[in-house]
Amino acid sequence: MNATLQSASLSRLIAELSRLPGIGDKSAERLALHLVRIPREEALALARAIEDVRANVKACSKCFNVSEQDPCAICADAARDRATVCVVEQPSDLWAIEKSGAYRGLYHVLTGRIAPVEGVGPEHLTVGRLLDRVAKDGVREVILATNPTLEGDGTALHIQQKLESRGVAVSRIARGLPSGGTLQHASRAVVADAIGGRRALAKGGA
Amino acid sequence: MNATLQSASLSRLIAELSRLPGIGDKSAERLALHLVRIPREEALALARAIEDVRANVKACSKCFNVSEQDPCAICADAARDRATVCVVEQPSDLWAIEKSGAYRGLYHVLTGRIAPVEGVGPEHLTVGRLLDRVAKDGVREVILATNPTLEGDGTALHIQQKLESRGVAVSRIARGLPSGGTLQHASRAVVADAIGGRRALAKGGA
Repeated sequence: MNATLQSASLSRLIAELSRLPGIGDKSAERLALHLVRIPREEALALARAIEDVRANVKACSKCFNVSEQDPCAICADAARDRATVCVVEQPSDLWAIEKSGAYRGLYHVLTGRIAPVEGVGPEHLTVGRLLDRVAKDGVREVILATNPTLEGDGTALHIQQKLESRGVAVSRIARGLPSGGTLQHASRAVVADAIGGRRALAKGGA
Repeated sequence: MNATLQSASLSRLIAELSRLPGIGDKSAERLALHLVRIPREEALALARAIEDVRANVKACSKCFNVSEQDPCAICADAARDRATVCVVEQPSDLWAIEKSGAYRGLYHVLTGRIAPVEGVGPEHLTVGRLLDRVAKDGVREVILATNPTLEGDGTALHIQQKLESRGVAVSRIARGLPSGGTLQHASRAVVADAIGGRRALAKGGA
């Protein structure tokens, strides 16, 4: 688009916004116009929030969670079970597990998943650092909590193989029908997981 | 989410991002993590682009297009047909028309459309300023180029009524089958527009 149409500042903002994941050219135009139109302080608050995050937030050197402290608050929490490490793809997965309240161990954030099609191999992730932690930090169980997708499953399999013969228990998060879901509306793969992963019930009722 | 989970900086960035239109909580989390992970200079480039836009870009006092100059480059261009004003909802609509190369007149950006459900009336738009321009600036034709939606049509109707008896020609952009489209895949409303808006062809072929 020529300079007569969009000013240099606006073109640059649209270009920067369209580099964000999931933001196409049209969305970038819409967001840029929004940022021009809202009160000046609201727009500048976003700019400052980006600057603050880049000044303050880093990856935890132990688990690669994002944090303003190093080690992060979870790694530094003496009350947590240090013998169990839950391996996730992203910090947002860690947040989801923390919100469930179902876990009190430590984490390891891979910062992605093995994706051969995109050229992402284990060497681009924090897999090596996970193996170091298992070797040195008294870890007794590793829970593989990568997503139940083709790539998440492949990543879990890769790590499982690396952990074999290291004297550590390795588990994979359960898959099946989501709580509140219905067989009728579930995909074939989900139904197959639900049947294949069935558990025996105690005699006389659970 | 508690402070242990997400640092203050990160929580604030997620909150600011989720205020943007079309960005939900999950998208805001994803974008914030992206901004943490990309090279520092890329993230700061976005922050600076927002600041630059707010320092430099304003609404043209004549047509309300966004611009670093006032009047904007289009209003200031002596080569354009000053007797014709094309009324659009947003600057992005103006950009789309400019890219088509089909128009050489001036514009008037309403900065929205009349949307009674959302409480947006003509007084929240630049309708009054359009009427002033028509009264004072020798405008001979007003092209109503609001979108062919319920609200865009309503907005066009409102302006058409305001312009009646002002001695100015008022037209509405054409609606019909989109170029490259097929009757088979068009919605009923589009097919009805295509039939209802048919044009007589010159005898002996066009």
